[in-house]
Amino acid sequence: MSTIKCEEPMETALNEIYLDNGATTKPSKGVVAKMREVLEAAYGNPSSLHRKGQEAERYVKEARETLAQVLQADPVSVYFTSGGTECSNTAILGAASSSERRGKHILTLRGEHPATSEPLKYLQEQGWEIEYIGTDEQGRADLEDFRCKLREDTVLVTCLQVNNETGVIQPVQEMGGILRECAPHTLFHVDAVQSFAKMEIFPRKWNIDLLSSSAHKIHGPKGVGGLYIRRDLHIPSFIRGGGQERQFRSGTENVPGIAGFGQAAKEAWDERRRRQESMQCCKLYLYEQLRKSIDGITHNGPEPREGAAHILNLRIKGVRSEVLLHALEDYGIYVSSGSACASNKPDVKSPALGALGMSAEAIDESVRVSFSKDSTLDEMDRVVKACTEIIPMLRRFTPKGRR
Amino acid sequence: MSTIKCEEPMETALNEIYLDNGATTKPSKGVVAKMREVLEAAYGNPSSLHRKGQEAERYVKEARETLAQVLQADPVSVYFTSGGTECSNTAILGAASSSERRGKHILTLRGEHPATSEPLKYLQEQGWEIEYIGTDEQGRADLEDFRCKLREDTVLVTCLQVNNETGVIQPVQEMGGILRECAPHTLFHVDAVQSFAKMEIFPRKWNIDLLSSSAHKIHGPKGVGGLYIRRDLHIPSFIRGGGQERQFRSGTENVPGIAGFGQAAKEAWDERRRRQESMQCCKLYLYEQLRKSIDGITHNGPEPREGAAHILNLRIKGVRSEVLLHALEDYGIYVSSGSACASNKPDVKSPALGALGMSAEAIDESVRVSFSKDSTLDEMDRVVKACTEIIPMLRRFTPKGRR
Repeated sequence: MSTIKCEEPMETALNEIYLDNGATTKPSKGVVAKMREVLEAAYGNPSSLHRKGQEAERYVKEARETLAQVLQADPVSVYFTSGGTECSNTAILGAASSSERRGKHILTLRGEHPATSEPLKYLQEQGWEIEYIGTDEQGRADLEDFRCKLREDTVLVTCLQVNNETGVIQPVQEMGGILRECAPHTLFHVDAVQSFAKMEIFPRKWNIDLLSSSAHKIHGPKGVGGLYIRRDLHIPSFIRGGGQERQFRSGTENVPGIAGFGQAAKEAWDERRRRQESMQCCKLYLYEQLRKSIDGITHNGPEPREGAAHILNLRIKGVRSEVLLHALEDYGIYVSSGSACASNKPDVKSPALGALGMSAEAIDESVRVSFSKDSTLDEMDRVVKACTEIIPMLRRFTPKGRR
Repeated sequence: MSTIKCEEPMETALNEIYLDNGATTKPSKGVVAKMREVLEAAYGNPSSLHRKGQEAERYVKEARETLAQVLQADPVSVYFTSGGTECSNTAILGAASSSERRGKHILTLRGEHPATSEPLKYLQEQGWEIEYIGTDEQGRADLEDFRCKLREDTVLVTCLQVNNETGVIQPVQEMGGILRECAPHTLFHVDAVQSFAKMEIFPRKWNIDLLSSSAHKIHGPKGVGGLYIRRDLHIPSFIRGGGQERQFRSGTENVPGIAGFGQAAKEAWDERRRRQESMQCCKLYLYEQLRKSIDGITHNGPEPREGAAHILNLRIKGVRSEVLLHALEDYGIYVSSGSACASNKPDVKSPALGALGMSAEAIDESVRVSFSKDSTLDEMDRVVKACTEIIPMLRRFTPKGRR
């Protein structure tokens, strides 16, 4: 079996196959080098007036320009935060507070990431009305239903571009078009944490007002996010203090993290076609080989050919995902049951699978395999081999009623 | 002139003398090494259930234990955030919102850091009453005035342990004692960003309910803070989502940053006596030599012997601080005019000096020199030499009315 060549081979422990890239990715060599450069030499505070401060500020400026290029946006629209969750909290709570006088109706989708659904739950407790756009059986927003549910008092629409569990891609460009036409004052927030710099999203062109992104999903560091805010839109500051980030987001800038994010975004965007192809290839190959070798394996959410290239959500009949996860771990293979971000909250283990109407049992038998630029077909062969050894064995130990 | 030996000599550009350590510090070698380790090997998501996640979680746990040791606190009282500013926002806004029913009166000091004064300004706009504790001429809280101003409806007291501009040390232990005695239900927040792991602060013993700290002031990375919350105190989450940090602070943990913070805290705490002595020695020597060599130099705030060892705030009569700052820069010497965190807001350039009742002209002639573990007496000699060359020249160019 030939291997897709990566310019940067995995340098992980022997036999380790990391397929939980929806949870987080390994920082690239370029990112680690850039961060070291900042930590060791450009350690000034960007707010300092001397050269040491200006030097640090240049790294922030460069990263801001990179993010703006990826989004085809103006650099002044990009603000750095501590991560995707802070971005979505700032965007949703800020949009709500700045639009409160116009209405208290928000449209979203079921099965969103907790970084969106939790601030919405908080707003609901404060008297806001949260309504859900209908979807097809894959979890994709129904544009007609979306259009119908828009009201005079709808002040915000918020959804993921790529769902973190199923990989379903929402038609955010079309949704922006409908908003431009039918509800020009309604704000539109897209959580692009799973898609930023992987696929196209152009907020200005697509009529998106607020957009969340995160470094650690694209081989950048944890602890840094990028929030796009439409240039003429004013939402209140979420963190108040020294007035960094042009008075919007206070706190000394995480310069090494921001520089790492810029580097990761540049690498991801420049190589996006190759990376997409390579991940799609691994995904389809793995799905096909698993289905060929083991019975009772189906996919959840979109058709593998249609969802995001880096996410494959599988149901393996008769095998509890947590048991499979730990069995695969012994082979050095890392996958996920539910989304990592929700695994602290067992009651909301898989909001996206729940939204598809799947039973608790079916959710319990589902695993997410998520790929990166470093994934190879050789690795997929090893995963298939491990699964053919593990799954029949685990099934033998499953109570009969369950099979 | 003999040099105080540092175990870790500065590896910066030739001739560079960084004396802006109140703004930020250079990450230590141990910190950079620890962060690399996490970035390159332990890159999992702590929320992931597999070994790669657990490995990352261990770094977070270790850092939490280190912070708890420094504070003589329980590790469950320590929460990681994106920095000191987020800590103080979370503490102040959270304490206010959880105590609102008991009263809306807050006591603080004039000249606090914007991470405190800005959230307080926001609360004031929402109808809260913010009152200021009187101070002596050095800016130190007057304990009798503090006691008198405590009211039935005082729900929060908040202040810095060490002021970032003048280095004045507040009697927070005594303040905690007064609160224990006179106002046991009033919450006490201390911003220990300039003092954490440099000097003692024991929240449990000293009756402090909430405490803010930051990694990048103690040779750790930017972008990570530690918030102490008294174990049985419940304040609302500030950032909502996946429920990380025991449901309190959502968002994927900044594992490399947190591990770096733990390492920095360990190094700082273990070496605190040596570091304090070395910085105090540099500070007193510099002050003495400057006063001996150049006339018209006085200190602002506490007596140099009494304030924090790492901060010296000087007034240089007849020389505008910004001009001096840039002139010193040509010698590779970096100092600060005003606080870095306020330099984006020219109207609040030096809140602490303003609180001392200093005139705009006097503030304009003030510089902050802030030392680190890496500062040496040789460097101080070079600073004195540079100042004796620069200051008389700059004074010749100052308009006569000003001298």
